[in-house]
Amino acid sequence: MRALLVVAHGSRRAASNDEVTALTDQLRSRILSFAETDFDFIHAAFLELAKPSIPDGIKECANQGADEVVVLPYFLSAGRHVAQDIPDIIKQVAPDLPGVNIIIAPYLGTAAGLPDLMLELAK
Amino acid sequence: MRALLVVAHGSRRAASNDEVTALTDQLRSRILSFAETDFDFIHAAFLELAKPSIPDGIKECANQGADEVVVLPYFLSAGRHVAQDIPDIIKQVAPDLPGVNIIIAPYLGTAAGLPDLMLELAK
Repeated sequence: MRALLVVAHGSRRAASNDEVTALTDQLRSRILSFAETDFDFIHAAFLELAKPSIPDGIKECANQGADEVVVLPYFLSAGRHVAQDIPDIIKQVAPDLPGVNIIIAPYLGTAAGLPDLMLELAK
Repeated sequence: MRALLVVAHGSRRAASNDEVTALTDQLRSRILSFAETDFDFIHAAFLELAKPSIPDGIKECANQGADEVVVLPYFLSAGRHVAQDIPDIIKQVAPDLPGVNIIIAPYLGTAAGLPDLMLELAK
């Protein structure tokens, strides 16, 4: 089974974390509607300041039977968090989950559709 | 004339700021290609840590002849920056530009197309 883990920075403001959870819920409904997305389930996790942590998120996916977890960084730029912190955390957790293939997807800021989305918002 | 001002947080890392500038360049090419976008030109500005500042970005738009500036917050969540700092800065600069209508668009994190974009990245 294949899981998608949306990883956001996390905030002291509960409302910011709730936005990520709401987005994950939206993604979940997409995944349930469209079998071609190839994901069996989806969770959110946070780099810091909120729970679940990235290791806990990955372990939850594994507990639900995932043998592949795609980690999607919900970040706009390739700062230290994307380039170093998230890969480091995954390297640390991977040995505990030998049957699980963990893949990091390109971060949100690289999405080719962003300019169109922004023009839509600016209308 | 109508201007679009993409406002990002700004980073100590030049590469992060360059990503915003590159995205703005992509948007500019979209705007030039599609007259229906209703924008005559586009600039980027930064809340902090990078230049131009938001007031300088708005003034640059005004200097180029804009009588309407749409400020698009390039932020994923409605934290203090989106809810308070950006509106406060605009309130401060507006009296200096009496002929310019400054509008704040919804921030990026509210875009309805985000879930689809994320599924595309995760594929």
